[in-house]
Amino acid sequence: VTTASPATAPAASAADRVPVAIVGASGYTGAELVRLLSQHPRVAIAGLYARGKAGEPLAKVFPQFAGLPDLGTAPLEPFDEAAVAARARVVFCALPHGESARIVAALAARHLTVLDLSADFRLKDPAAYAEWYGTPEHPHHPDPELLQHAVYGLPERHRDALRTARLVAVPGCYPTATILAAAPLLEAGLVSPEGLVVDAKSGVSGAGRTPTTATHFSEAGEGIRPYKVAGTHRHTPEIEQELSLAAGRVLRLTFTPHLVPMTRGILACVYATPTDPTRPAAAYHEALAARYAHEPFVTVLPPGQLPDTSFVRGSNRAHVGVAYDARARRVLAMSAIDNLVKGASGQAVQCMNLALGFAEHEGLAGPAMFP
Amino acid sequence: VTTASPATAPAASAADRVPVAIVGASGYTGAELVRLLSQHPRVAIAGLYARGKAGEPLAKVFPQFAGLPDLGTAPLEPFDEAAVAARARVVFCALPHGESARIVAALAARHLTVLDLSADFRLKDPAAYAEWYGTPEHPHHPDPELLQHAVYGLPERHRDALRTARLVAVPGCYPTATILAAAPLLEAGLVSPEGLVVDAKSGVSGAGRTPTTATHFSEAGEGIRPYKVAGTHRHTPEIEQELSLAAGRVLRLTFTPHLVPMTRGILACVYATPTDPTRPAAAYHEALAARYAHEPFVTVLPPGQLPDTSFVRGSNRAHVGVAYDARARRVLAMSAIDNLVKGASGQAVQCMNLALGFAEHEGLAGPAMFP
Amino acid sequence: VTTASPATAPAASAADRVPVAIVGASGYTGAELVRLLSQHPRVAIAGLYARGKAGEPLAKVFPQFAGLPDLGTAPLEPFDEAAVAARARVVFCALPHGESARIVAALAARHLTVLDLSADFRLKDPAAYAEWYGTPEHPHHPDPELLQHAVYGLPERHRDALRTARLVAVPGCYPTATILAAAPLLEAGLVSPEGLVVDAKSGVSGAGRTPTTATHFSEAGEGIRPYKVAGTHRHTPEIEQELSLAAGRVLRLTFTPHLVPMTRGILACVYATPTDPTRPAAAYHEALAARYAHEPFVTVLPPGQLPDTSFVRGSNRAHVGVAYDARARRVLAMSAIDNLVKGASGQAVQCMNLALGFAEHEGLAGPAMFP
Amino acid sequence: VTTASPATAPAASAADRVPVAIVGASGYTGAELVRLLSQHPRVAIAGLYARGKAGEPLAKVFPQFAGLPDLGTAPLEPFDEAAVAARARVVFCALPHGESARIVAALAARHLTVLDLSADFRLKDPAAYAEWYGTPEHPHHPDPELLQHAVYGLPERHRDALRTARLVAVPGCYPTATILAAAPLLEAGLVSPEGLVVDAKSGVSGAGRTPTTATHFSEAGEGIRPYKVAGTHRHTPEIEQELSLAAGRVLRLTFTPHLVPMTRGILACVYATPTDPTRPAAAYHEALAARYAHEPFVTVLPPGQLPDTSFVRGSNRAHVGVAYDARARRVLAMSAIDNLVKGASGQAVQCMNLALGFAEHEGLAGPAMFP
Repeated sequence: VTTASPATAPAASAADRVPVAIVGASGYTGAELVRLLSQHPRVAIAGLYARGKAGEPLAKVFPQFAGLPDLGTAPLEPFDEAAVAARARVVFCALPHGESARIVAALAARHLTVLDLSADFRLKDPAAYAEWYGTPEHPHHPDPELLQHAVYGLPERHRDALRTARLVAVPGCYPTATILAAAPLLEAGLVSPEGLVVDAKSGVSGAGRTPTTATHFSEAGEGIRPYKVAGTHRHTPEIEQELSLAAGRVLRLTFTPHLVPMTRGILACVYATPTDPTRPAAAYHEALAARYAHEPFVTVLPPGQLPDTSFVRGSNRAHVGVAYDARARRVLAMSAIDNLVKGASGQAVQCMNLALGFAEHEGLAGPAMFP
Repeated sequence: VTTASPATAPAASAADRVPVAIVGASGYTGAELVRLLSQHPRVAIAGLYARGKAGEPLAKVFPQFAGLPDLGTAPLEPFDEAAVAARARVVFCALPHGESARIVAALAARHLTVLDLSADFRLKDPAAYAEWYGTPEHPHHPDPELLQHAVYGLPERHRDALRTARLVAVPGCYPTATILAAAPLLEAGLVSPEGLVVDAKSGVSGAGRTPTTATHFSEAGEGIRPYKVAGTHRHTPEIEQELSLAAGRVLRLTFTPHLVPMTRGILACVYATPTDPTRPAAAYHEALAARYAHEPFVTVLPPGQLPDTSFVRGSNRAHVGVAYDARARRVLAMSAIDNLVKGASGQAVQCMNLALGFAEHEGLAGPAMFP
Repeated sequence: VTTASPATAPAASAADRVPVAIVGASGYTGAELVRLLSQHPRVAIAGLYARGKAGEPLAKVFPQFAGLPDLGTAPLEPFDEAAVAARARVVFCALPHGESARIVAALAARHLTVLDLSADFRLKDPAAYAEWYGTPEHPHHPDPELLQHAVYGLPERHRDALRTARLVAVPGCYPTATILAAAPLLEAGLVSPEGLVVDAKSGVSGAGRTPTTATHFSEAGEGIRPYKVAGTHRHTPEIEQELSLAAGRVLRLTFTPHLVPMTRGILACVYATPTDPTRPAAAYHEALAARYAHEPFVTVLPPGQLPDTSFVRGSNRAHVGVAYDARARRVLAMSAIDNLVKGASGQAVQCMNLALGFAEHEGLAGPAMFP
Repeated sequence: VTTASPATAPAASAADRVPVAIVGASGYTGAELVRLLSQHPRVAIAGLYARGKAGEPLAKVFPQFAGLPDLGTAPLEPFDEAAVAARARVVFCALPHGESARIVAALAARHLTVLDLSADFRLKDPAAYAEWYGTPEHPHHPDPELLQHAVYGLPERHRDALRTARLVAVPGCYPTATILAAAPLLEAGLVSPEGLVVDAKSGVSGAGRTPTTATHFSEAGEGIRPYKVAGTHRHTPEIEQELSLAAGRVLRLTFTPHLVPMTRGILACVYATPTDPTRPAAAYHEALAARYAHEPFVTVLPPGQLPDTSFVRGSNRAHVGVAYDARARRVLAMSAIDNLVKGASGQAVQCMNLALGFAEHEGLAGPAMFP
């Protein structure tokens, strides 16, 4: 065998690259965007924006960029929509929800293509937004009209819409992992939409860079714990929205997130009731394998091999597996992703590739880093 | 408040202490038995037995005992049933299943009280043993008659029987965590025995001291993965046996174990269907709190606080919590234990305390070690 | 061999126990004091004081104490010197330096025995205090007179003075590890006081419970880094003070601390020049072994075995080792301790035992927790 | 600023790529070579060889490659020198020392360019090889003549020789980190070659993929320990060889390696005596900054910032820093690298780039992965 890096068209010359900006570059998803976009052959990073760290060079905030040509000395700047619009054609917003919506609206009004990594444009139903994200000061979605134009940025579910999207709502990390595991089984009618249980486990980087007691090394380093259980985590409605679409009817499920003493990775385990308990176990694997046969970033593991977050670390790939417990009549669908890549920044780049007409794998083809 | 260590009778003088032996002292549960029993005020360690490391001083095999009076220089000896019987009144067997049954039978025949940490005497039904543990060479349980005399060593479920037990089958780590969380809810009829889902997460020490690729630091250190899913893990029938007793009818459930990058700890999440979906959430907590009100080693956390394995590390305590997801009509019962203590060696000591008529908390009263 | 827990006099009855208070109970060393003192047979915890968390039950601040009789529900109270003096005979102060000195002075004036875990009374020379701890607002030591009465709480160096001490300055974690490894070699004249290099590595719990970016799991979890190098860490003068005493002359050394991705433990490596390069390697080991032969908490490992923090976790023991590099003519003395036990709270209890005339090992005899 | 990925010539077409083979592809450095070379724009992987795992597809041995076009299904094959020579022009050997020398000689005889990651061709003096690597069966270097043609593969020291090398001895991980920190200071005469102390800390992946007790998660996960101290680690003569060259005279030093609970990374701390203790601290930084100003993979951190292995994880970059302890008259030079990249496979690719006349950064330009 001869194996080479993917045959691609030559990297674009500097002049031909699409200028992109990153707003919220001082957080982990911002840094991951810098990592990925700085290696992307068809774009150029044209601006890095951050609030708290504005004025500092990137390499001071994130020393992993120290010494890299241009990047390390690039300054973080305070956000200024006119400046962004003057410099960039595409903007990645890695801001907290609420804050993001206002900036996204301003950028969209200037006809920029926006990849929003916040939750602000993920829930299609403004009432759901109000229920899950509303606050006394901001009880409603700030821009319900723009919401209707946003496309949920999971290429495996909405690829066609993404090709023409101007505003992409990049999915949450837990939803990405959960939907990739469960949607094909629901879609194919192999499992019931009733009574789904999602037990998901996340690395600590999902909590961001702001220090808290819960994410303090001495507290999080040698233990596992659930949090926001029993329908209180805001990713619940997002998962339900997309799995309802897959099932063809509205469903509700229980979702339990956990904090695991590792930096990166999400493992989602979805427990479902088979629609036909006598169906052979192989049918579930076949359905997933068929559904994902041509997906560039989803690998259905062979029967007997189970997803492990270690093997997707740093990559945009999802590892998916399924097993059927014939004794207990329960289907277990599993997936492992890197929460910062396929669960956030990598997926955002994948969506950008679609929206700009690039090959979908551009800038994302590298293998995971193991060990 | 004035808080002192538990009021106990004075420590027994050397002559009055019960001599105990540990067979299988070179593994992690063996070492944990040494740690606990060396601090127990009513027993004296009278012999340490191990196969591979026989002849070596304990402190060479486990340097944490170096420098401790007597203990550090105590040798590991090859097992010899006559010698054990001559020295000890109580024997802890921390051996692999299959191997354990033969040694336990020999010791029981010599009228020693035996705490068996293996799986050999846990399943009351010999047919279940044959199904889950049988091999071509040893298809059946080696001693079905003795099996009938064994008591399943979970004091919270079988305390009375343990008071007169001569052979205790100390439960597995996953079953201990799972049963403590789920049994009271089944017993009280609050949840259905149908369709239980157990998603459990274990630290790596549960896999023992023998090095493998799966437990190699570089492989296990920054990832989480399920293993032996869909009814293939041998703790499944043990959980089902005890929860069937609690439910008053035979039940089957699906059980998913995971390997988590931490050394100690098990977290079990049990998903159950409420028998009455309109029941208030508080009812589940009240049932657990009432059931465990007088248990020395089970703490039901206040509503809103969730179990975290960090807070039971090194202790014999279980932290139990429950939540009701009214949206999805699902009860989530959770528990956290230290797999090597309440999940193995500590529980064995607790059973010994009962069998010998000691106060149940003797030698086990210390708080967890955090951080 | 028969090995039982140490023969001690029976635990004191509640009335005979010495009442002790802990000021600063909401930090890690405070919690560790609670863990140790709650198991100590001759004292009773008579009060827990904390500023930020005053009013909360201990078990809410530190869930590892949940469910423990009395302890879990004991409230943290705001510090009040009269209340402390009314309730307690002995006080452990686990407060930040500066803040501690003022409270210690007040307590000492009320004739309480004080174990101060801060740095305020460690440096015997007020000028050194001013140099290393002075601030524009507080340029000088707040109580130079009281400073003269304080005893540096390293029993292996100052045992006799500790037997009559009323104010003990409990050493820092790095100094404890470093001095235990190096002092006997200096004292015996085996190594030169010139040019000592101390390269020390600490677990993250040494930084306390306050969350910071440096101790955030995602930042500290998969890397090692030096900090406060080249004579800028405040433990430097403390180490120099004690090693100067051992050497019989003033010495200066370079000290490099590191942050290691583990919760507990300090490993100190001390590099020294032999006074006689032709001296056989065994001489260094012999000197350490002789010096520590009767020490209850220092184990000199056999030649060829090297200290590992894993084997002292949770215990008050220090593991010490030494090697001679004949090629490079350099002696390497090493020690491993648990920074929160022998490096802080355990050592404070050991000092209390001496000051109160208890057996030195009371309440501290348990083995380390491994794995 | 506009920042794009490095301007390079377009990726070579498949036909123009240099075919490379990896011998020893089932270990960690082998997998890392696959990761890097599969993304390299000018080479194609033409063969993967392994002994124990021969016959298995790469993705079974290393699931991080599952689903990648071509790579995942590529089989590991048993080594066959004729087959390698027929397919490849360049061979990377990631084999144990001793075994490597024989295979390298065979490949070199067939006029292949060989990058040897073992220690077999690193020590230029055959007597040193005999002393450090000789065994009763193989007391001497197997091919002293070929040894004379090998070039020590540290581009920062031997770039010119590497441009024409046919056999490159890729340095060890500890030597790379140590030499990068110390050599410029010796070369410039700023520090004395006498009495150097090297205290280095490594992640566990440096021990390879074979499971051992020392690298078992439960043993290595929460502790730090030194090993092979006092002139017994085989990287000692390699460090001495290169630093002697830098100093212009033969030197000996003491070297202490440690095992740290992290997967990747090496931190080296080098303690040296200044030749002029009155020299200002800035001089050391200036010397390093000047020396490395044009190096593509060495970043000298600004004064006050210290190396942290977290910030070089996955990259071929070294972070170097220096501090002067004026109190103790000691210079501390530090460096952080990823042991599997700049300490092994990345450096091998860098050497290949030089040997083949490619731009030195090709295939290695990506930033580190943080967090």
